[in-house]
Amino acid sequence: MKVLVLGAGQLARMMALAGAPLNLKISAYDVRSGNLVHPVTLEVLGQGLENGIADTDVITAEFEHIAPDVLSICQASGKFYPGEEAILTGGDRRKEKALLDKAGVNNARYQVIESKDDYDAAIATIGLPLILKSALDGYDGKGQWRLKPDSDLDAIWQDIDQFLKTSPQGSRQCVIAEEFVPFDREVSLIGARNAQGKLEIYPLTENIHTNGILSVSVAAGDDDAVQSQAEAMFKAVADALNYVGVLAIEFFDVGGTLMVNEIAPRVHNSGHWTQQGAEVCQFENHLRAVCGLPLGSAKRVRPTAMINIVGEVTVPTDVMAHAHVHWYDKAPRPGRKIGHINLCAESAASLGDALDTVSQHLADDEFPALKPAADSLR
Amino acid sequence: MKVLVLGAGQLARMMALAGAPLNLKISAYDVRSGNLVHPVTLEVLGQGLENGIADTDVITAEFEHIAPDVLSICQASGKFYPGEEAILTGGDRRKEKALLDKAGVNNARYQVIESKDDYDAAIATIGLPLILKSALDGYDGKGQWRLKPDSDLDAIWQDIDQFLKTSPQGSRQCVIAEEFVPFDREVSLIGARNAQGKLEIYPLTENIHTNGILSVSVAAGDDDAVQSQAEAMFKAVADALNYVGVLAIEFFDVGGTLMVNEIAPRVHNSGHWTQQGAEVCQFENHLRAVCGLPLGSAKRVRPTAMINIVGEVTVPTDVMAHAHVHWYDKAPRPGRKIGHINLCAESAASLGDALDTVSQHLADDEFPALKPAADSLR
Repeated sequence: MKVLVLGAGQLARMMALAGAPLNLKISAYDVRSGNLVHPVTLEVLGQGLENGIADTDVITAEFEHIAPDVLSICQASGKFYPGEEAILTGGDRRKEKALLDKAGVNNARYQVIESKDDYDAAIATIGLPLILKSALDGYDGKGQWRLKPDSDLDAIWQDIDQFLKTSPQGSRQCVIAEEFVPFDREVSLIGARNAQGKLEIYPLTENIHTNGILSVSVAAGDDDAVQSQAEAMFKAVADALNYVGVLAIEFFDVGGTLMVNEIAPRVHNSGHWTQQGAEVCQFENHLRAVCGLPLGSAKRVRPTAMINIVGEVTVPTDVMAHAHVHWYDKAPRPGRKIGHINLCAESAASLGDALDTVSQHLADDEFPALKPAADSLR
Repeated sequence: MKVLVLGAGQLARMMALAGAPLNLKISAYDVRSGNLVHPVTLEVLGQGLENGIADTDVITAEFEHIAPDVLSICQASGKFYPGEEAILTGGDRRKEKALLDKAGVNNARYQVIESKDDYDAAIATIGLPLILKSALDGYDGKGQWRLKPDSDLDAIWQDIDQFLKTSPQGSRQCVIAEEFVPFDREVSLIGARNAQGKLEIYPLTENIHTNGILSVSVAAGDDDAVQSQAEAMFKAVADALNYVGVLAIEFFDVGGTLMVNEIAPRVHNSGHWTQQGAEVCQFENHLRAVCGLPLGSAKRVRPTAMINIVGEVTVPTDVMAHAHVHWYDKAPRPGRKIGHINLCAESAASLGDALDTVSQHLADDEFPALKPAADSLR
């Protein structure tokens, strides 16, 4: 069976590696070059989306910021999973918030902002502080604002107004204002849903970010009540989308009550630990779902942590004596994810010890989340 | 780092899949076509051994029946691990038996047969029954004889004499006569040795053959004393060869005493279970060893069994709900290994149950070893 992935990055690469033992042939459509490539070897296999669609059985995606015309062409083929609506929803904060409301899952209060009146109404109704984010992908590093009681609200509005007027997405773009959630931690849930609505859901992972980029994910066991909340919301969202494939949901944990932050209609960085820690990893389960094959067990085999390798950091090979290193065959660049490290142990406490051992081979300033993560487990 | 594998079959394929996360670029030299190919995509990357050697950092092999001139060219490059002598030893029963004697490990009594006098001497000294095997690869299905008390010894000698005179390998060929060993079971040990002599050894697996082809391998825990015997012999053999890479040793178990049957200087079919059952699989550990990277742990994570998929059998996708299926992207042909199934469980008994569950999806006549293997674990 052949699978075409929209996007040729590390997620497509890891799908290809997970799919090879299933005799699945994965190719990737590089949306920038228009080339069809093998996502591991980068061999150019052809040119053009239409050719890619004609020569595949199934289409899926590794990211959600994809041009609507590309999505609608894929949808028209009848081969696209999780499909146009799910990808559009993942890439558009307005649609995403509407979905969360429709599915009846707990999420932060919000207001859509398209005008100065909307802006004033958000401030009046929700109150400060407020987090404002562009609904679609931002550009030039813009697309996010924070309103505090002492902010210059008029100046920020001028900036937002300018942003909306010059947005490459035109009138599809808007800004979503959300209440500030004072969360205790961020957790995420990854799961697969097949075309018959069957679910295989992994245990929650706790995510630690550094400079806004995922740094460490730990799947070491969570409270059953919290896991149940997350699974109920996962089912509500996945069913509302009639979702097929792996879906990721990020939550804020506020005193044991979960609130959906955002969804990603794809395999997700916080699910990379499943490669060593779960019975069947997220990449294989995504392929199984979109190809109509039986889902595999999402059971956790043992406590596992994932450490992202971001930018121009040094990872000595000594780390391999203790852990599984997954490189993405990418040149290091500041802020770029170029690999990750998976680490397994028999218990949460020994996972803490293992994280500490690995941290001794890595520079504190390059991996600042590591020692706190280790300490929190011991 | 680049690695060239001599041979482009499933073992090279699984090395490439295990090596990709380490950013190792694996190419394969197809000894029949002379092509350099990617062992997963089969993309032709070039032509000719010399070009392959010039464009790689490390050379290794996926099989031992390789022409001596190919091996000596690889050896001369200084990049070849485990190297010419190890591969020649694995492919030549005469060298192999000499190595086992030199290493001082228990193995069946034998005699080299190059003439009628040798033949008569073997019968007189070792006695009947005797197993005779060609030292090098046989041809036309020939190369193995069994001498029983009622055999026509002269007729068999005529056949052997003819075999030796027409052997494509000329005077390098001979026949090894070995005592018949009434073994209770066959077990094998896989391990990695690096250039500094450090070892990582997997637990023993018990192997069940059907029609002379490995059918089921079970790594469900073995007697510590038996494991220790096997490890001591492994170390003696690996040290004697100054071995670098993964080495497999097959043993006869005769009432709890192990006797080396044969060695394979490479990753081995009876080690495929390590992909799901061990901390770091044999393919990755072989690459780590030959590339001078730290070895990974060979610890068994949980009881695991491997079922070979051989020839034109039917494997319904339902099996995937219970197990890991690894296909080799090969067309089915009688006797050809085209994939395998890995199955994990919490205990030996539950592994027996899991084998039984899988056996219900597979035909008894196509997988005859499955139910007995399940029963022996429960």
